Amino acid sequence: MKALTFQAEGVVKVTDVPKPGIKGAGEALVKVTLGAVCGSDLHILHGHTPINQGAVLGHEFVGVVEDVGAEVKRFKPGDRVVSSFFTSCGHCALCRKGWFNQCVDKATFGHGEYFGDLGGGQAEYVVVPLADHSMEPIPAGMTDEQAIFVGDILATGFFGAERAEIRPGDVVAVVGAGPVGLMATMCAQLFGPARIYVVDMVDSRLETAQELGGIPINASLVHPVEAIQGHTGGIGADSSIECVGLLSAVDTAIQSVRGGGTISMVGVPSAVIGDFPYLTMWMKSLTFRAGWCNVQAYMRPLLDLIAAGRIKPDAIISHRMRLEEAEEAYRLFDAREATKIVLKP
Amino acid sequence: MKALTFQAEGVVKVTDVPKPGIKGAGEALVKVTLGAVCGSDLHILHGHTPINQGAVLGHEFVGVVEDVGAEVKRFKPGDRVVSSFFTSCGHCALCRKGWFNQCVDKATFGHGEYFGDLGGGQAEYVVVPLADHSMEPIPAGMTDEQAIFVGDILATGFFGAERAEIRPGDVVAVVGAGPVGLMATMCAQLFGPARIYVVDMVDSRLETAQELGGIPINASLVHPVEAIQGHTGGIGADSSIECVGLLSAVDTAIQSVRGGGTISMVGVPSAVIGDFPYLTMWMKSLTFRAGWCNVQAYMRPLLDLIAAGRIKPDAIISHRMRLEEAEEAYRLFDAREATKIVLKP
Amino acid sequence: MKALTFQAEGVVKVTDVPKPGIKGAGEALVKVTLGAVCGSDLHILHGHTPINQGAVLGHEFVGVVEDVGAEVKRFKPGDRVVSSFFTSCGHCALCRKGWFNQCVDKATFGHGEYFGDLGGGQAEYVVVPLADHSMEPIPAGMTDEQAIFVGDILATGFFGAERAEIRPGDVVAVVGAGPVGLMATMCAQLFGPARIYVVDMVDSRLETAQELGGIPINASLVHPVEAIQGHTGGIGADSSIECVGLLSAVDTAIQSVRGGGTISMVGVPSAVIGDFPYLTMWMKSLTFRAGWCNVQAYMRPLLDLIAAGRIKPDAIISHRMRLEEAEEAYRLFDAREATKIVLKP
Amino acid sequence: MKALTFQAEGVVKVTDVPKPGIKGAGEALVKVTLGAVCGSDLHILHGHTPINQGAVLGHEFVGVVEDVGAEVKRFKPGDRVVSSFFTSCGHCALCRKGWFNQCVDKATFGHGEYFGDLGGGQAEYVVVPLADHSMEPIPAGMTDEQAIFVGDILATGFFGAERAEIRPGDVVAVVGAGPVGLMATMCAQLFGPARIYVVDMVDSRLETAQELGGIPINASLVHPVEAIQGHTGGIGADSSIECVGLLSAVDTAIQSVRGGGTISMVGVPSAVIGDFPYLTMWMKSLTFRAGWCNVQAYMRPLLDLIAAGRIKPDAIISHRMRLEEAEEAYRLFDAREATKIVLKP
Repeated sequence: MKALTFQAEGVVKVTDVPKPGIKGAGEALVKVTLGAVCGSDLHILHGHTPINQGAVLGHEFVGVVEDVGAEVKRFKPGDRVVSSFFTSCGHCALCRKGWFNQCVDKATFGHGEYFGDLGGGQAEYVVVPLADHSMEPIPAGMTDEQAIFVGDILATGFFGAERAEIRPGDVVAVVGAGPVGLMATMCAQLFGPARIYVVDMVDSRLETAQELGGIPINASLVHPVEAIQGHTGGIGADSSIECVGLLSAVDTAIQSVRGGGTISMVGVPSAVIGDFPYLTMWMKSLTFRAGWCNVQAYMRPLLDLIAAGRIKPDAIISHRMRLEEAEEAYRLFDAREATKIVLKP
Repeated sequence: MKALTFQAEGVVKVTDVPKPGIKGAGEALVKVTLGAVCGSDLHILHGHTPINQGAVLGHEFVGVVEDVGAEVKRFKPGDRVVSSFFTSCGHCALCRKGWFNQCVDKATFGHGEYFGDLGGGQAEYVVVPLADHSMEPIPAGMTDEQAIFVGDILATGFFGAERAEIRPGDVVAVVGAGPVGLMATMCAQLFGPARIYVVDMVDSRLETAQELGGIPINASLVHPVEAIQGHTGGIGADSSIECVGLLSAVDTAIQSVRGGGTISMVGVPSAVIGDFPYLTMWMKSLTFRAGWCNVQAYMRPLLDLIAAGRIKPDAIISHRMRLEEAEEAYRLFDAREATKIVLKP
Repeated sequence: MKALTFQAEGVVKVTDVPKPGIKGAGEALVKVTLGAVCGSDLHILHGHTPINQGAVLGHEFVGVVEDVGAEVKRFKPGDRVVSSFFTSCGHCALCRKGWFNQCVDKATFGHGEYFGDLGGGQAEYVVVPLADHSMEPIPAGMTDEQAIFVGDILATGFFGAERAEIRPGDVVAVVGAGPVGLMATMCAQLFGPARIYVVDMVDSRLETAQELGGIPINASLVHPVEAIQGHTGGIGADSSIECVGLLSAVDTAIQSVRGGGTISMVGVPSAVIGDFPYLTMWMKSLTFRAGWCNVQAYMRPLLDLIAAGRIKPDAIISHRMRLEEAEEAYRLFDAREATKIVLKP
Repeated sequence: MKALTFQAEGVVKVTDVPKPGIKGAGEALVKVTLGAVCGSDLHILHGHTPINQGAVLGHEFVGVVEDVGAEVKRFKPGDRVVSSFFTSCGHCALCRKGWFNQCVDKATFGHGEYFGDLGGGQAEYVVVPLADHSMEPIPAGMTDEQAIFVGDILATGFFGAERAEIRPGDVVAVVGAGPVGLMATMCAQLFGPARIYVVDMVDSRLETAQELGGIPINASLVHPVEAIQGHTGGIGADSSIECVGLLSAVDTAIQSVRGGGTISMVGVPSAVIGDFPYLTMWMKSLTFRAGWCNVQAYMRPLLDLIAAGRIKPDAIISHRMRLEEAEEAYRLFDAREATKIVLKP
C-alpha cells in the first residue's frame, strides 16, 4: 500500500510498504479515508522527535473498518470510525483513574518504533490495537472532515478549555491562534464565558479566531497583558489557555490572569526546564496546568456536539490534498502557508 | 408617589402612597426606572400568597440611586442599579455557606408585611435594605430592559440550569416554555449541551424556545418522555429542568432522564406534598433538586454575559406599559395574552 | 458442588448442583473462599424479589481464580479476588459516563434467571463474566473478611456518603444504623465532617455507630429532627444519608437538613411511589439523591483504604458460619439476631 | 500598652506604645489574650520583608472584644474572637469570587505601614478593621490555644490540602514537616487519603508527623521521590503538598506525583523566579498550584472541627511564654529550638 514514511531529518517520502494485518484479537484493520498533517509531524520532520527510518507517519485519521479480531465487540467490518492518536489499555491503575494518556502501555500512531511501533494514518491502511477502547463510531451523516479532529486537535482544545475551569460569565485569554488555539477558542465557548481574548501576531489567524467569537489581540501591536488588564478593569482574565509552548507565551498566559485564576497549557513546551514566576504564582494563588490530551475521555461528547452543529472543527481546513501529495503538504504546512491540511488516500 | 397596591383577592390598584425614605445606615433609596410583572404577582392577585391590604407590589425592578445610608459603600446617588428580588444579610451561617436565599433575615420586595415588610418595585420609589449585598451596578451602555431580569427570572433560569449539572455534549430536557422555561433554555446553552429539548403545549412559546436554540416538543401532539427517549436511542436526557411546578410536569422531568442523571426543579410546586417515584429514583440512581433562586450569587456573571451579548433576556418582553396601566397589565398577563410585561413609572 | 438455592417463598436449601465452568472468553471461574448474607437475600427469601426455583443465591463473595477465559487479562489462576455484586460491560453509553450500575447488559449474582442468570456466591464455585471489569485483586496480606464487603455493602455506604457532598467541618445525619448505615457512617468519616449524628432505635446498633465516631440519637427516646436541630442551633445538618428505605426514615432524612443541603438515599425504597415534601424541597433548595451502588467505581480506593487500616469494615461481622449452615444463617439474620454473617464453603 | 516592635534588621523589642482605639465604624478593639510567633515574623526579623521602624509585630492572635464601631453587627464587647491574619472588604470583584486573599484593599496585621498599617497581635491590644468579615467568634469551651491557629497556620495547611484535590483512598506526599507541614498533614487527613508520606530531614518533626498519621520519609537517609515511588508500585502519589518554599522541595513535590496528579504549594517561594520542569508537567498532565491562604473562607469549618475534637492544632505548641519574653521567643524560634511559641500578654 501507499504510505508516507520518514526517511531522514527533513525528508519524508510516499513509498510502497506492506499492507498491515490483524495480529491480536483486540485489533481492528482500518482502511483510511482521510488523514491530516499535525504540528507534531513537523517535529518529526525536523528531527526533534526520535524516530526510525521507514516509519509510517500520521496520527490523525478516520476510516472504515475492514477486519476485526475476535475480541473486538464494538466494531464490525464496514463501520466508519475515528481513532484517538494513541491507544490505551483501559485497565491499568492510571486508566482506571480516567487518565488514559498516562496508560502504562500507551502507544502513539505514526511515531515509529520508539513510541509503541504502531502504523500511521498517512497511509491506505492502519491497524488499531485495543480498538474497543481507542476508536469511536462516526455518527451517520457526519463527514470525515467533520469527525477527524476529534482524535487529536479538537480534543486537545477541549482538554485545554476544560482544565481552565471556565465558569459562565468568565473572561478567558487564549494565547496562540494556530490550529490548537482555534480549537481551544471553539471549545472554550462551550463553558459559557462572557468574553474570550485571543492573542496572536498573525492577522489571518486572528480573523479566524474572531469568526469563532473571540476578541482578537494582536501582540505585535499592543502588549497583550496590558490589553487584557485594560479590558477587565485592571483585574485580568479568570483563566487562560496556552496554545503555543514558547516560554514567552507561557508568561503571557500567567500574567494575564487574576488572583485565584487558572492557566491551562496545552502547547508543547519548547524547553525541558525553564523560568517560572514562583512568587507571582504564590502571591496571586494561581493554578497552572500543563498536559497533552486525554483524548479517549472526550471523543463521544465532541462527536455529539459536532452532530448537533454546536461546533464546526472542519472550518479550519485550508487545504485538501491527495496522499500522493503528502510531501508537498508537509512543505506547505512547514512554511506556514496552510492552516490545516487533510490528505485523501 | 404612585404605586400598585394589593386591595383584595383579585383586585390591585394604582394608588398614591407616601414616598419612602432611608431609615437604616445600610439602605439605599432607588428611583424606579423600570419594573416588571412576574408569575408570583399572579399568585398574590389570586390570594394564594398571604399579604396585607395596601401592600406595594413588584419585586423585579431597576432604577437610579437617589440616596444612601452612611454604611453603604458600593453605591452613591446617581448610580444605576438592579436589585435582587430579596435581601439577605451576608453574614449568617447559611449566607456564609453561599446560600443567600436561606438567610435567616431575608425579606422579599413587593410581598407585604408577612415577608419582611419591604416596599415594591411597581412604584416610583423603593428602599433597598442591605444595599451593598442586594444590588449590583448596571454596566454602562446596558439598557434597563436588558438588566431587569438579572434580579429574578433570569437568575432563576440560570440557577435551574446550573443545578442540572450539564456537561458539554449533554442532552437536556426543559419542561415548560413560559418565561422561566425560556430563561432556563437560554442559560442551559451556557453549559455547552449538544441538544436541548423543550417541552410545552403552546406553539408560540415553543417557537420562542426554538429561536433560543431549543428543539421543540409539543406535549399535546406527542408523549414527551417517549419523544426524548426516541431521540436519544432509548437512553433519555442527561438532565432536565422543570419550570412549571405541576406534578405532571415533574413526572415528565424525572422520567425523561437517563440513569445517573439529574432533575432540577425551579417551578413553584403546585402541591405541598405529592407523589414521588421513589423506586425509579433509586433504580436509576437519580438526583432531584428543587429550589428558588439564590439570586445574589449570579447577578454579576449574568450582567457580564448580557454586556458581552452572550444572552439577550430582554427578547422575551412582549409588552411595554406605563405604571398607571399596571392593573391592565396584570389582566393581560393573567389571561396569558402577554409573555412578559415591563412597567415604566 | 454445594450451594444454597432458593426453593420457595421462605425456603432456601443447601443442595448439590453442577459445578459451573467457563463458557465465554472473558469469564473467570472463582473458587469461593468466603460469602456473606445480605439484606437483599431476605427480600428473596420472603418472595419480594422474583426468582426461579433452584437459583443459587449469594452476591457478596471473595475467592481464588481457578480458571480464566482467553480474553481475561488482569487475572490468572491462583489470584485472590473480590467481585462486585453485579457485572457491567464497561463500553455502553452509560458505562462510558461512569454509571456502571446503569449498564444495559448488567447482571446480578445470586438473583436467578430474571437478573441475568448468573450463579451465586453462597456456593463453592461461581463464574464471573466480564471478569476484567467486575473483579479486583485482593492486596497481599488482606484477609477475606476485610475484603468481602468492598463488592457490595461497603461500596454502598461509600456511594451514599460521597453523594451526600460532605465538606470538611460539616454536620451529617445518618438515618439507620443497620449494616448499610454503619458502613455509611464509616465512609462519611472519610470526608472530614465535624459531627455525624446516627439515628436508630436499637441500642446495640447505636453503640456500634458510636464506636465508629458517630453521635447516637435514639429515635424511640427523642424526636430525631428536633434533636439534630437542637444540636445545630436550629439550622440542621448539612447533609443526610438515608439507609433504611421506609418513607418515615426518608422524611427524617429530608427534614434534618439545612437550606441548600443534600439528602442521599441508599435504603431500598419500601414503596414504588410515595409522598414527597415538594414545597419543603423547593423552599429550602434541597438536593435529593437515591440510588444503588455504582460498585465498580469504588472497589480500588476502598481496598486501598482497608489495606492502610483507615477503615475496618470487618468490624461489623457478628457471625462466622459454614456454608452448610446457610439455612440457619438466614434464620438468624432474618430474626435480627445477627448484624452480619459470613459463610465459609 | 506593651507591644513587640521592629527596631532594625535583627532587632525586635518589647516597648510601650499608645493603646490603639477605634476610628472606623466597622472596627473592633480586641484585648489580646494570646499571640503566636510565625515563620513570617522571622522574615521580618531578618530584613527580608520591608517594614518601618517601630511597627508592632504579630499576626496570629485571639482575644476579647473591648469596643466596637457602630457598623459592627456580629460582635459586642466581651465576645471572644479569633482574627484572620489579614483583612478583606468582602465586596470587591475578587472577594465576590471568594478570593478574599486577593482583595484590592487587603491589609496584614503586624507588617507595618507597607502592608496596610494595621497594628499587631504581639501586643496587649489590636484594632481589627472590617471586623464582621475578618473575625470569628470562638465557640464556648474552646481554649485560646485551640483557636489561635485558625487565623493563619492551620488555615494555610487546610488550604494546601484542599487545593491538592485529595480523594478518599489517595496517596498524598507532604514535603516539609515544619509547623505548616504538620498542619497540612493534619488537614489532609480530612479528605480521606489511604496514606500520607511526610518528607523532612529532622527526626523530631517526622515523629510528630507520624503521631498525626503520616508515614515519615527522612530525606537525609533515602531519596524521597524514589521512596514514594517504591511504596506505590512505581506510580507515585496522587498529589503532594509543598510546605517549604525551597526549589529543591518544589522539585520533590512535583516528581513525587503520578500522571494527572496535583501539586499544591503553600511554602513561601525562596526565589521570585526559578527553574520549572515544563516538559514533565506536560508529559504527565500535572496541575501545580501555589498560594497563600484564603483564611476567611476556612475559619468556621476549622473551628467546628476543633470543637468536635477532629483536629488538635494546639498539639504543635512547644513553648508558652509571656509577651515580655517575646525577644527571647524570637531567638528560640529562629534557632529552631522551638516548634511553635505562643505569647501571653
